[in-house]
Order: sequence, then structure tokens, then C-alpha cells
Amino acid sequence: MIAKTVKKVRIGAEVDFLLEAQIGEIVQKALEEDIGSGDVTTASVIPSNAKARGRFLAKGKGIIAGWDVVKRVFAKIDPDVGIDIFVNDGREARSGEFLGNVIGMARALHTGERVALNFLQRMSGIATMTKKFVDAVGDTRARILDTRKTMPGLRVLDKRAVVIGGGHNHRNGLFDMVLIKKNHVAMIGSIREAVRLVRRQHAHRFSVEIEVKTIEEFREALSVDADRILLDNMKLDEMREAAATNGGRIPLEASGNVTLENVAEIASTGVDFISVGQLTHSVPALDISFVIDSHEE
Amino acid sequence: MIAKTVKKVRIGAEVDFLLEAQIGEIVQKALEEDIGSGDVTTASVIPSNAKARGRFLAKGKGIIAGWDVVKRVFAKIDPDVGIDIFVNDGREARSGEFLGNVIGMARALHTGERVALNFLQRMSGIATMTKKFVDAVGDTRARILDTRKTMPGLRVLDKRAVVIGGGHNHRNGLFDMVLIKKNHVAMIGSIREAVRLVRRQHAHRFSVEIEVKTIEEFREALSVDADRILLDNMKLDEMREAAATNGGRIPLEASGNVTLENVAEIASTGVDFISVGQLTHSVPALDISFVIDSHEE
Amino acid sequence: MIAKTVKKVRIGAEVDFLLEAQIGEIVQKALEEDIGSGDVTTASVIPSNAKARGRFLAKGKGIIAGWDVVKRVFAKIDPDVGIDIFVNDGREARSGEFLGNVIGMARALHTGERVALNFLQRMSGIATMTKKFVDAVGDTRARILDTRKTMPGLRVLDKRAVVIGGGHNHRNGLFDMVLIKKNHVAMIGSIREAVRLVRRQHAHRFSVEIEVKTIEEFREALSVDADRILLDNMKLDEMREAAATNGGRIPLEASGNVTLENVAEIASTGVDFISVGQLTHSVPALDISFVIDSHEE
Amino acid sequence: MIAKTVKKVRIGAEVDFLLEAQIGEIVQKALEEDIGSGDVTTASVIPSNAKARGRFLAKGKGIIAGWDVVKRVFAKIDPDVGIDIFVNDGREARSGEFLGNVIGMARALHTGERVALNFLQRMSGIATMTKKFVDAVGDTRARILDTRKTMPGLRVLDKRAVVIGGGHNHRNGLFDMVLIKKNHVAMIGSIREAVRLVRRQHAHRFSVEIEVKTIEEFREALSVDADRILLDNMKLDEMREAAATNGGRIPLEASGNVTLENVAEIASTGVDFISVGQLTHSVPALDISFVIDSHEE
Amino acid sequence: MIAKTVKKVRIGAEVDFLLEAQIGEIVQKALEEDIGSGDVTTASVIPSNAKARGRFLAKGKGIIAGWDVVKRVFAKIDPDVGIDIFVNDGREARSGEFLGNVIGMARALHTGERVALNFLQRMSGIATMTKKFVDAVGDTRARILDTRKTMPGLRVLDKRAVVIGGGHNHRNGLFDMVLIKKNHVAMIGSIREAVRLVRRQHAHRFSVEIEVKTIEEFREALSVDADRILLDNMKLDEMREAAATNGGRIPLEASGNVTLENVAEIASTGVDFISVGQLTHSVPALDISFVIDSHEE
Amino acid sequence: MIAKTVKKVRIGAEVDFLLEAQIGEIVQKALEEDIGSGDVTTASVIPSNAKARGRFLAKGKGIIAGWDVVKRVFAKIDPDVGIDIFVNDGREARSGEFLGNVIGMARALHTGERVALNFLQRMSGIATMTKKFVDAVGDTRARILDTRKTMPGLRVLDKRAVVIGGGHNHRNGLFDMVLIKKNHVAMIGSIREAVRLVRRQHAHRFSVEIEVKTIEEFREALSVDADRILLDNMKLDEMREAAATNGGRIPLEASGNVTLENVAEIASTGVDFISVGQLTHSVPALDISFVIDSHEE
Repeated sequence: MIAKTVKKVRIGAEVDFLLEAQIGEIVQKALEEDIGSGDVTTASVIPSNAKARGRFLAKGKGIIAGWDVVKRVFAKIDPDVGIDIFVNDGREARSGEFLGNVIGMARALHTGERVALNFLQRMSGIATMTKKFVDAVGDTRARILDTRKTMPGLRVLDKRAVVIGGGHNHRNGLFDMVLIKKNHVAMIGSIREAVRLVRRQHAHRFSVEIEVKTIEEFREALSVDADRILLDNMKLDEMREAAATNGGRIPLEASGNVTLENVAEIASTGVDFISVGQLTHSVPALDISFVIDSHEE
Repeated sequence: MIAKTVKKVRIGAEVDFLLEAQIGEIVQKALEEDIGSGDVTTASVIPSNAKARGRFLAKGKGIIAGWDVVKRVFAKIDPDVGIDIFVNDGREARSGEFLGNVIGMARALHTGERVALNFLQRMSGIATMTKKFVDAVGDTRARILDTRKTMPGLRVLDKRAVVIGGGHNHRNGLFDMVLIKKNHVAMIGSIREAVRLVRRQHAHRFSVEIEVKTIEEFREALSVDADRILLDNMKLDEMREAAATNGGRIPLEASGNVTLENVAEIASTGVDFISVGQLTHSVPALDISFVIDSHEE
Repeated sequence: MIAKTVKKVRIGAEVDFLLEAQIGEIVQKALEEDIGSGDVTTASVIPSNAKARGRFLAKGKGIIAGWDVVKRVFAKIDPDVGIDIFVNDGREARSGEFLGNVIGMARALHTGERVALNFLQRMSGIATMTKKFVDAVGDTRARILDTRKTMPGLRVLDKRAVVIGGGHNHRNGLFDMVLIKKNHVAMIGSIREAVRLVRRQHAHRFSVEIEVKTIEEFREALSVDADRILLDNMKLDEMREAAATNGGRIPLEASGNVTLENVAEIASTGVDFISVGQLTHSVPALDISFVIDSHEE
Repeated sequence: MIAKTVKKVRIGAEVDFLLEAQIGEIVQKALEEDIGSGDVTTASVIPSNAKARGRFLAKGKGIIAGWDVVKRVFAKIDPDVGIDIFVNDGREARSGEFLGNVIGMARALHTGERVALNFLQRMSGIATMTKKFVDAVGDTRARILDTRKTMPGLRVLDKRAVVIGGGHNHRNGLFDMVLIKKNHVAMIGSIREAVRLVRRQHAHRFSVEIEVKTIEEFREALSVDADRILLDNMKLDEMREAAATNGGRIPLEASGNVTLENVAEIASTGVDFISVGQLTHSVPALDISFVIDSHEE
Repeated sequence: MIAKTVKKVRIGAEVDFLLEAQIGEIVQKALEEDIGSGDVTTASVIPSNAKARGRFLAKGKGIIAGWDVVKRVFAKIDPDVGIDIFVNDGREARSGEFLGNVIGMARALHTGERVALNFLQRMSGIATMTKKFVDAVGDTRARILDTRKTMPGLRVLDKRAVVIGGGHNHRNGLFDMVLIKKNHVAMIGSIREAVRLVRRQHAHRFSVEIEVKTIEEFREALSVDADRILLDNMKLDEMREAAATNGGRIPLEASGNVTLENVAEIASTGVDFISVGQLTHSVPALDISFVIDSHEE
Repeated sequence: MIAKTVKKVRIGAEVDFLLEAQIGEIVQKALEEDIGSGDVTTASVIPSNAKARGRFLAKGKGIIAGWDVVKRVFAKIDPDVGIDIFVNDGREARSGEFLGNVIGMARALHTGERVALNFLQRMSGIATMTKKFVDAVGDTRARILDTRKTMPGLRVLDKRAVVIGGGHNHRNGLFDMVLIKKNHVAMIGSIREAVRLVRRQHAHRFSVEIEVKTIEEFREALSVDADRILLDNMKLDEMREAAATNGGRIPLEASGNVTLENVAEIASTGVDFISVGQLTHSVPALDISFVIDSHEE
């Protein structure tokens, strides 16, 4: 009777088609590297006409993220697989809670299990960690941002998981925003000159953020035509001074060794954004397993 | 004078050409998702003829892994970039130690920095964690194995990092070894029947491993024609009993919630392999930064 | 009225999705090399709204193989083509027998005819030859195996045709089984050392087969930890001696200049497998033609 | 000392770059299907620094074809492999003759052996068979042509082998010449109408050949604006009558069940071309082996 | 109520499947270069559930061409978009006339607008210009041909637009017809020798056209075995003399600086074809805009 | 002696590697659509060892653009072709002036001629037209911008040609800047609300431009947090009023039916940017031919 409530997989109607294509390609590659010339165990042991039910089971507490990708994994293997979700993206699962069911040919479930889990555990791990940071900053004005420290090839998924966990996205890459770092300034002499070069080349086509490490650099950055200032690895009182000096004129972002322990204090300095590399470069997977039963409709 | 010792990037002569192609594709995708229509900051701010030196600096202690991929990142951006490595793959870096230099056009160094770090930090993180497990089992017979719980699309790199850290690789995927799990047995009735089906289909073309969760299942597995037995989530004394019963007849592998705290005890039971999902699904990146200076030859 | 019994093409539900994709790509390439910028004859001569029936006609006797590929050829050109099969994969056709009908737009039938025949004739040729070998070994224990001497790019189809003809598949490629040949042993000194190196590297992840050419080599192979022994180009009495010495301990495979004339004798020596390169490297196509008629529904 | 005469592989300077790319892709696919995730035997057994010499040895008599493809196979695996050819494309090899040497890393030679042989044996098989037909027609005016009955995906190689064997190529595919067959005429009513439709659509952009099966059809074909007439499955005296009636006005091609036994007689009827499907759809591979020795420079 | 008459997009049933795939790829590339990592304006501003109607409005007079491509643009973005066409391909639109409606999700309409217009305006521009030339030659025997001076990557669309405008296609590329130009003849010495070389290599597989610039060259071309003669940049009286000398024996084509002003006179000389580079290399886009309204079903 | 001054083709060292790859793909597609299965004329007529010199000859006056692409065309066909440029990108050519020489194998020159010209003529046509607009606005503050009305698939080249002609680039696509058009505002009610939605979603990650058609809308746009205002199809005195009201606070862009006749007057109103669709959607190719001579070194 479970099958009655299970609808056939329908993929990502809410995302744009190029992003869908990109995710489809990521899933395809993941399946190719795992399945290769064929799942020899399943093909030998599981009857080709057996149906089964697989249940995703949380073995830890956390925010679930990644159902769209899980659907796509099974839909690639067999378009007739149905998925029934109990704990949607962005919802918190308790340890021991069943998250969703997959109903379909037993072979498809066995073959797709590991890849589906790899995506779901990774994305849920990110969402869970993000949520902790978001909760930690509470009702301050600070928003939690991701960084470009994402897993190579998986940036769109890492960034989606951050949003599901309640965070916001920093730039997508080097192409859609200007971020002038200390290394750039060192090459060109001054913040002012760096900004001038950007504006001469692109006028105001791109937003410009400036990374500063000291109050002196901050004051220089305040005096030029920038859209955001990044306070990198500053001490708390420096950040407070910067926020006071700024007086709300320009958005401020804090970064550098942000942890769950210090993020609330950082938020209390009055910065608008806090970017956290740990969300994506060092996040533990959420512990989830997949229990497969025989299934009779 | 540094440049004198720096040779032009030479890519992966020791790996096979299809693997090289696969890694090349992974790097290409990572650069595409980051650079997109162009690195607008660098193109505006950094003079096109400026040269620079970038130094990888360890900010934590760990085993370095991933130089081949780092080389490939910069070689894609500019084939004339040179790399000089001080701490080779598999060597341990101290916090504060410079790991290697990159010499080339300043634009190439700025554009490639983040992607190179993402790979190097990930792979070094895995190697570092693997080394800890390898050290923990000491001179027991147990080898540390990875699992299929790798980052989607990055399996070949994750598995390479495990080897660099002193571990060994489990199967590459579903295609090159048979692993009969509890879920499979449940479908078909008995371990014996499952093995019979595999052998009927493929004779001895594939090695066959059997997952067991109890001593009873273990005894059944011992009685059939298998090449390895996986003791999944067994208690220490069960593993000891299994090893004693086995008496060296067939290799044994332990898995399930293996941690740095319990791995030595697991190794002491006499198993031949211990597989550790944490090596690749929940590993923190090694903290490494990239310091770019102007550079005159 | 024929059309009433014809169902629309449904592709390969029973094969796994990556294999399906691979076959789809093979078919696409075959159509691209034949059609290029367009079938100028058909586009000029055949009205765009004409329907037709094409009938596959056996002009020789043999085992039919390849319907899945034929379906895919026409489905690529026009998804509305319907196919009705009279002699299924694995069934024997008499000369002059109609094998199946294709109903659809006349242009699609004309454009796809040659490519469909090229696949069907090749695969049926392989199945027919395989069946002859299988029949020749009769009820001995010997199974007929294919080799890696397949047509470049078509291995998955060649191997499928062998199975349809009653044979079994040897390894898929260099990646899923170890086969230590004379050339390898020459490099490393002894069979024992070669096996030791494999086991050190991969433990028992891969099955290991050893090629021997003499009784002396066979005895060495028997004494090491191997999963199969390949008796290459041995004389019949040597094979008999090997089988007797073996006494069923380890599966034996015979290879080298196996023909329809000598295969029965080889089987009589007691070997478990006989691998036959001729099945795929030198097999004549089964003679099949395609007769297109006008068709009114 | 052998190495002294061996030059590094240089690929196909004489072929056009798109064809080169197409052959490169064919070779890549062939290597991918064979090597997959890696040649586990070679990687375990052959030292990574060992050099070797491989010698191609003819085990039957025939025309050699395919060196360009062989070079490409080894160059993909290792660009430093050198090849020294003794029996060039188009030259006849005696049984027992060494055809060429490959010098390079032992691993590259072992890994590429089978794929290189598969190409060389196939192409040499085609060239050998073509040469037999060419010799059989002697100094008549008849040229031996191939057909579109080539191995799917390998048409460019099959057609190249035919040329190497002394034959000529028929059309490349459906896109570069019009061939009006009986099936087309049946759809449209008359040869004259079919030709009119082609000329109306394309004027004289394409050459037009007409297939006829009877003298009556031949006479109709003679009376229209065609560039060649295909006498399909005609008897010898019908062909003779057609040739006499034609009197050299328009080139004639014979096809249908052409064999080595009857091709000379067909040629004697005075036709200009004889097309032979057997050259590519049912040709045995030339027997060639590859002997690998250790090699010290 | 408009929606009632709008059918869901159905793509190019009348074109062959490889051409369809090629057009699909062209559209995909065009969308990728425009949308990249996402349409940030639309995603921020347009509600995800808003529906809209977009109306194509002619702002100049001309022949419409390109609906198949427009359909494909929107179908890629959202398969549920419906299109209702008022002025079909090949029909003339008045300035101010609505050409067709697109109904669907507002986001899809905003995201696809520019790319759809780029195709529709280009193709309609070509069709409009072609029609002017076709009208100018009136009821002479001359057909208007395109050239290979098409937009790189868009040849199939450019050539389709010419046909929609009433013109005919010259060869598709270098592969499907022989055109011997002055540059070729200069290399080889004479027209006769050039034709001899072609016929020796390919017999009559390809049609052969010869470019001549003078009456003397024309006479030489008339004396050889050619299928068409191209009168390049000849004066009107030379063309007249050529046509008279030819007397209908072989089709003649005029080319070189053909304009709307002189094309009628050129046609009056009696040539069979006039090829016009301007149709595709210098054609203004037809002015068309896209008006988006909110839409309630 | 010409060859002495000709260097081997060196491709685009100054552009970033992903852009290079994109241009390489564009060139590849252009060659594939033109050459297909081979340039049958050249292969038959031109000796394979003949060398030649090709000279690009301007037949009209204009700004040259596209050498990098021309180099790439010939380098794809034959990497040994050398190019010597007399009139560099951005320089003006007189009618009758030789622009550059190509030296290499005669076959490569014949095969690449048309594709090279198609790119060079297109890009030079754009640069020439851009230069006319740039000259027309003289020393006003107005910069000439391109639009997204580029040829599908060729945007990167179209935009590069605009820069070579002295213009500037507007946004690359929908992904790197926000442009709120009338259609968007209509959906959401007010300019203010539209901007609020963008800022809520992306903070200041993207620059925001607002399209207005009336002075009223302009005043609303001035009052919100925008980075640029687009005056669409405004009358000259409205533009003057807008510029006066603005007083330099925010950059202004004019668009809509900009022609060479009216662009100076538009510039005189004080706007900062003028965007011109005609630069890329309706630009005539610059007339350039390619003269091939025999060449002896």
C-alpha cells in the first residue's frame, strides 16, 4: 500500500534548464565512475523482475538536502522508480527517522544506493552545518555566506545545500563579481588604483568588493567606489571599529577562521555578512543509510 | 634565482593515459565552474605581462597529496607556469612550512589559486586522515581500505589520496568485484544461493566478497566459495571469534563505524582489512594557503 | 492489417542504463557516418508522407541476434516506427524466412535500412558461428568463450551476440580480471613472482588467470594462488595430461587455433572453457536483406 | 641497436585533419572499452621503468594495412613509443615475416597490444581480400569497389583498407551521391520520374546512379539523365548485353553475390565497376601476433 | 482565451533527425552563451508561478523564417511552453503585424526572448533578402542560389532561410560537390587536367563545376566533362556570349558582385543559376520585437 | 623570401584559456560544417606536396579584426602553416591593400580559405561599423556599447570585434548583470519593488541597471538603489532633461534605433553610454578576398 502514495520521479521543475543539465551531468559522471561496465553483483544475484522498497534512514540528526539529486540518480537508472519523501529539503530529521521511500525494480535500487547516499549525505551535511551557523548568529543582521572553497565539480550542489540550510550564496565564481584581494593590491600599488582599473574597464557592470586586513586599509577602501568591504581575519574590536566607522554606508563582510564558537561574537560586531569556508571544505557527511526490503504491490 | 630551480610543469608521466584524461576532465570542469566567462578581477587589475611567484604554505600539519592535480590546474591556464615542489606527495608537512612554489604569469597564478587549493587541501586532508588510521593499526596485519563513499565525480582522486596516505584501495566500483551484501541475500534467500548465482554467471571471473553481520552468517560464508568475508558492524569479541574460526583460510575485512579511537582494537582482532568510510566522506581539508608575490627573474 | 500487430519501438528495458547509453552512442555514430548531411536520394524521391513496410528476409540459415540494436536504429531516425519480430534473438532462421517487419514512414525505412542490416548481419553472424561451436562441444563440461579480439568500438555488441548464440563471455577488458601471459612472466621471471605481485597490490580483489604453454609451466601455475589456468596452444595429449593432473582443483581454459574441426576433441580433454577468437575477428555476416513495400494502413 | 633506427611516432601527416580527428576518436573508444579503469595485470606485474620491444609477426600471407592506426594506438598510451615499419601499408607480407617493431615502455606495449592487433588484423584482412579481387579482374577495365556494408563506426578505416588493397571507394554515405534503388522506384512509379525529382531538387549538384535488375529497366535507365547504372544481380549474358547496348555511353557497375570465383567473368562482360560487399562485411582477419621482448637500449 | 488555440511546442517533424540534432546543438550553445550560470534578473524579479504571453511583432516588412528554431529555444527552457503562429515560415509580414504568440511561464518567456529574436530576426532577414532577389529575376530561367559565405556554425539555418525565401541551395560544403576554381587550375596547369584528375580519383561520384573568368576559359570548360560552369565576375555581354555558345548543353551559373540592381540583367543573359553571397554574409536582420504581457488562463 | 619573415602560427597568448577553448570549438564547428567528409576538389586537384602563398586582399576600406581566429582556422588544418600580418587587428585597411600572407601547404590554404574569410570579413565588418559610431560621437563622454543582439554562437567573437573597433562591451549575458526592463516591471508593479527583490536575493553581488521609457519612470529609477539607468527610445530633449536631472549622479545609457545619422546628437545630450544593436545584428561583411599563388621557398 505504500506504493499508492508514491509518485513517479519528477525532476527539478523549479530550477532553470541549464542548471538542470549541469546537475544531470554531475549525476551521470557519478554513476559512470561507480557502475562502469556493469553492477556484476546485482546482475547475478537480484532477479530482473523483483521489486523492492528502499528506505532512507537518518542515523544522526540534521537538515536534509538533496532530494532533487537523489531523484535524478534513480531516474537515470530506471525512469519508472517512484520516490515518496517524508522529510523534505530544509526540514530537520531526527536520528532514527525514515526520510523517504524509493519503490521500483530491486536491481535499480541496489545499483543506485551508494551514489544516491553519497549525494544526500554530502548535501545534508552541508545544510546541517549551515543551519548551525545560521542559528548561532541568531537575529543579528549578519547573513551566513558560503565561499568558493567548494568540492571541485560540485559547486552548484554545495551552494544549493547552503541555501537549503538557511545560508546565502557569495559569488558563483570569478566571472560574476569583482573581489580585490590583498594579492591584487600588492601587484598594483593601492586599493584606489585597483578600483579605478576595474571601473575603467567595466564601468559599473560588476559589483566590486575589497578585501582589507587592517583598519588603515579599511579606511582606504571606504574612500573609494566599492560595493562591499571584506574584513579578512580582523580581530573583533577591529571589526567593531570598522562597523562604527562605516555607519551603514556600505555592506561589510567578515571572513577568516570563522567557527561555531566565534561566529556569534563576530555577528555582534555589526557586519552584514559572514563567509564560512568550513561549510563546504571540511563538512562531515550526515549519517544516513538505505534499507532495502522486498516489495509486493 | 628561485626560477632557476623551477621546471616547467610535466604532467603525470607515471599514471595511465585514460586516468590522465579523466583527471584532466575533472580539472577542466573545476576551472569552468569557477572561471566561467572570465576572471574579471584579475583581467582588470593585474597587468598582462606581470610575473609572480606563488607559495603554498601549510597552516596545519599533515600529509601532502595532489601535486599532479595542482600542476594540471596551472598547466591548463598557462602551459608556461613552472612548479617547484619542496614537500612531495606522501611527505608530512609541518604547520608553517612552505610546500612548493609556482612561478609564472601573475594572471595565471591569481586565476588558478582557488581551484588548485581546493584540490590540494581535499587530497591532503584525505592523506592525512588515512595516515592517522594507518599509524593507529601499527604493525598488525590489518590494512586500511577506502570505500565507495567518495565525493561524486572525484573517486579517482580520493582513492589516489588514500594510497598516498598509506592506505589501500577497495574495489573501484560495482564493476570489478562482487560484494554480496545483506540486502542481496535477503532477496535470494541464502548466502550459498547468492554465491552459486554469481559463479554460474561468471565462473571465477570476479572475486567474491560476502558481507556478514553475525557469527552464524559468518559460518555460512566460510562454507561457500568466497574470496573475502566482510564483518560488518560486529563487536570486537565477535570479530575475534571469527578470526579464530577462520584460522587464516580466507581474508577478513572489518567495517562499520570505524574511528581513530577503536581502529587499533579492531586491528588487534586479527582481521586482514579495515575499511573506513570517514576517510573520504567526512574528512576536513588540510589548511593550506597560497601567497603570491611579485617576481622578477 | 499488419500494422495492427506492430507495437511502437520500445528499447532495451532489460539492459542496464549505462550499457543502453553506450549502445545508443554506437548506433548514433553509425548513422552519422552513413547519413552525414542528409540522405539526398530519399529526400528527393520518397514523398514525405508515404508509409511503408520493410521486411527482413533471411537469405541463409542462422541464429538471429541484434533486434535491440535494429530497434534503436529506426527509433533514432523516427520514434514512431513500429517493429514486429517473428524470429527473436537466439532463434534459428531458415533461409527464405521473414524475420520481422518494420512499419513506418517510408523515408525512415529507406534511410535506416543499411545501418540496421549492418548490425543485424554482424550480430547474427557471430551468434550463428557461436552456436556451431556450442553444438560441437555437445554435452561436455566445456563452455565456449569469446576473447578480446572484437571489432574496435563494438565489443559490447560482439559479446552480447556470443551470449545470444549460447556462448559465455570472457573478461570485458583489461580492467576486470588479471590474465598473466607469457609476455608478462618473461618480464618478471616466474609465474610465482607475477602472482605474488598481483596479490600484494590487489589482495584478492581480482581473479587471476595464468597462461601456460607447456606442462612444466602448468605445474608451476597449479602450485600458486590462481583462479584459472589458460592452456595456450597445447597439444591434445598435453591438455589431457593437464586436466588429469588438475583433477578438478582449478578451472582450465583452452585457447589457440580452435576451429570447428578440432573443438570437439579439445572439449573431450576435460577443460572447462574453450575460448575462440574466430567468433568475433573473422566471422562472416549472416545474409539478410530488407524488402520495402508501400504500405496502406 | 634496433632502437637507433626507430623514430618517434608521427601520425598521419598525409590525411586531412577532420579524418585524423575521426580516427583519433575511433582509437580512443577502442582503448576505453578495453582498458576501462586500468590494465590491472600490467600495472601489477610489469615494472614501471622497464623498456621492451614488440614485434608484429605475420602468421599468414597478406597485404598489410593500418600502420597509421597502430601508431595512433601506442601514441595515445605513451607519446614516446617509437615504431619501425618493415612492411609498409600495401606491401605483401609472407607468413613468418616480421612486419614492424615497437620500442618503448613495457607497460605501454602490453596495454596496447590487443587493440593494435585488432585494427591491424582487420584492415590487413580487408586489404588482402581486396587485392585478391583486384588480381582476379586482371587487366580488364573493371575496378573493384567497396560498398556501405562496412563495420558500424569503422567506415573510414574499412574504406581506407580497400584503397590500400588496390580497390576504389564507392560513395562515402547517403549524403554525397544519389543512388536510386528498386525500392525507391517502386515508391514513385518509374526511373524517369525518380531522376526528374532528383534533378528538380538538386539540379546537377549530385551524381545519380540507377540500380536496375533487368534489361528492360536498363534500357529505361539509359534513356534518362543518369551518371552511372548499377546492374544488380544480373546474369552474365544480361550484363554483356547491357554493356553492348551501352557502347561506353555511361559507366556501368555490377553488384550482387560477387565472389572470387565469378569476378573475372563479370569483369569480362565489360562493366566499369564491380562492387563487393564481402570485402568489408565478411572478411577474415589476417593472422598477426605481437611478440614482446625485454629491451635494453 | 488565446491559450485555447495554442498547442504545445512540437519540434521539426519534417526535418531529418541528424539535422534536428544539429539545430538542437546550435540552440543549446546560443542559450548557454546567453544564460550561463543563470538569468539573475528574471530569477529575482519574476515570480516562479507567473504565467505570461509573449507576442512577436514585426516592425518592418519581410518574409518570416525560423519558427522551428524559435520553438526549440522555448522548448529547451520549458517544454510546457505553447506557441501559436499567425504568419508562417515563408509568408510575408507587414510592419505592425503580430506574427505569433508564446504562452507559458513568465520566467521562460523572459529568459528565452533575446535568443529567440536573434534567430528569428536573422533567418527572416535572409528570407526577406532572398525573396527580393527571386522577385527581381522574375520569370527568367535563373534560380537564385546561396553560397558558402554563411555565418560560421549557422550554415544549416542560413541555407534553410534561403529556401524559405524562395532561393535554392548551392553545395553544402567542400564534401558533396567538386568546384574547380581559378586557384586550383593555376596549380595544375589547365582545366582539362584538373577535371581529368577528379575523374580519375572519383569517376563520376561527384558533380563537377568549373569556374571561368573569360570567354576563353569558358570555351575550354565547355570542351571537358563538366556538370556546370560558373561564370565568375563576367560582364553582361560575355555572359550573353557564353550562354549563346553553350546553347543549353550544360547549366551555367553567374556569380560575383550580384546586387538587387543588376540581378535582373544578369538573369536576362540566359544563365541557369545566380549565386549571391550577400544573402548570408551581409544581410540586415528583420526588425521584430517581443511584447510580454501578464496572462491569465 | 617572403617565408623568411613568416612565423609559425601562435595562437591567442593574450586571451584566457577558457575563452581560447571556446573559440577553438567555434572554429572546429565551422570547419566541420564546411569540410565534412573531405574537400574532394582539393584532394583531387592539388598535389599533396605543393606549397603556396595566400594573400588576404582588402576590396573595401575598413578596420581589420579577427587575425587570432584566422590563425586558428589554418592551424587546425595544418599546424605548420605560417602567417605574416601586415595590417593588424584594429588598424584601418585601404581598398586594394594586402592585409597579410599565409604560407604553407597548398591543400591547407585551399581548404581553409572560405572559413577564414567568413570569420575575418564578419569581424572586420563589425569593427568597421563600430569605428564609424565611435568616430561619430567624437570627444563627447559617450561610449559606444554592443548589445546581446549577436549572432547565435558567436557572441565572444562579435564582442571582441566591437572592442577592436573602439567600442565597449555591455554585459556578457543574463548571468553577470541585472537589467530590469519594462516587461519585468510590468510583472511586479514598480521599479522600486523590482530593485528591492534583486537586492534581497543577491544584496550587491550584481550591478543593477533599470530601463526607463519616460521621464516619470526615470525619476522613479533615480530614487532607487541602481547602478545605471537605460533611457530606451527616448526623444533627444527627454534625454537632455534626464541628463540634467541626473547631474552625474548615476551613469546613463541611451538605446533604441541608434543610427550613424543620429548618434552624434544622442551623444550630445550628455549620456555616458550608447548601445547599438546594429553593430552585430545587421552589419555588412567587409569585402576581403584571398589570392593563392604557387610558392617556392
